[in-house]
Amino acid sequence: MNKRKLLLVSNSTLHGSGYLDHCQNHICSFFTRDVKRVLFVPYALHDRDAYAKTAREKFRTLGYELDSIHEASDPVTAVRNAEAIFIGGGNTFRLLKCLYDNDLVTEIRRRVLEDGVPYMGSSAGTNVATISINTTNDMPIVFPPSFSAIGLVPFNINPHYLDHDPSSRHMGETREQRITQFHEEAETPRVLGLREGSLLLVEGNNVKLLGTTKARLFTR
Amino acid sequence: MNKRKLLLVSNSTLHGSGYLDHCQNHICSFFTRDVKRVLFVPYALHDRDAYAKTAREKFRTLGYELDSIHEASDPVTAVRNAEAIFIGGGNTFRLLKCLYDNDLVTEIRRRVLEDGVPYMGSSAGTNVATISINTTNDMPIVFPPSFSAIGLVPFNINPHYLDHDPSSRHMGETREQRITQFHEEAETPRVLGLREGSLLLVEGNNVKLLGTTKARLFTR
Repeated sequence: MNKRKLLLVSNSTLHGSGYLDHCQNHICSFFTRDVKRVLFVPYALHDRDAYAKTAREKFRTLGYELDSIHEASDPVTAVRNAEAIFIGGGNTFRLLKCLYDNDLVTEIRRRVLEDGVPYMGSSAGTNVATISINTTNDMPIVFPPSFSAIGLVPFNINPHYLDHDPSSRHMGETREQRITQFHEEAETPRVLGLREGSLLLVEGNNVKLLGTTKARLFTR
Repeated sequence: MNKRKLLLVSNSTLHGSGYLDHCQNHICSFFTRDVKRVLFVPYALHDRDAYAKTAREKFRTLGYELDSIHEASDPVTAVRNAEAIFIGGGNTFRLLKCLYDNDLVTEIRRRVLEDGVPYMGSSAGTNVATISINTTNDMPIVFPPSFSAIGLVPFNINPHYLDHDPSSRHMGETREQRITQFHEEAETPRVLGLREGSLLLVEGNNVKLLGTTKARLFTR
């Protein structure tokens, strides 16, 4: 797994700023000047055309061309030829189901772990980079064939991690309680609660926490 | 479906009060004096003994004995013999998986719709009473064989429904956005956003909204 090169972002948009603004310097350091074109996966949102347009415009301002996989005649071939991959946020269940429906889970894993293709994920795109989507916050709007994900790192992530607000009168479970429930089940991996504004840079076996808000690690 | 008799509660505990306190008068009107014993399903929480103890103590103060299905030698027989059923809250995925694992989904449906056994659900227990768990808020900590649920009503419910807080700086999807994402998918049913403090009384084809906080209906 030494070729692995990942940038896993908690959230695409930070309150008060534009799409990917808060992490744009990290994106430019991550996709070095060798990368000209990034393959974008818009499956997590319903309107793929609009999503690709937003991502393409942002990436152009950073100096990269963006191809959206939903415009490719064959998605597997698009992954095989990709210089770099970016999976955007939205609904994690819809995203993972669509990755399975298009036979992309194994192909992306192979490209990233064996060929060293740089992988950037944001929110749902970060969830699917981990062992499983068992720690997503999203609503299960569709039924994927499995919760197992691409497995680029040996732990799970909870993006948009939210600390408990002691003034809240809402009685739904806190994020901490939900992750604790996950750890009540057998054989569950560690979970990194990645607060909005945080991101993870993985190079080989080195993991570095970037951003300003830090993260919280939950062990079974 | 004319025998159907359901009490579907959004949340087990309202801020500032004890377990089921906010709906206890409705519970007593719902389980008439003909009911002596209620069959409790504690599958949504990990510690079933502790959960059954809490529920048993509360139901005793209301004048009902409570049998927990996890103490029965055969869960299906317990459902076949039940005078009344109460499925408590917790994690909806864990609950539904366990209902499938014990062959209870069809059996509970039959008892409620054909035999007129009164069914009370709270939170996750309300989710599994609907068409599917596609509109739960819970974390997908285990993988059930399907998201299809018991199907006692022809719509879905989102319990603990939460209105958007315009002062929030958190960038995760609002509840409204999540339900809208559900309705972007094909063939999705209506969703009733049931605020904490609200409950639904279903008798035959009549549905009545009880409680103080009202609900919000989402149509595709």
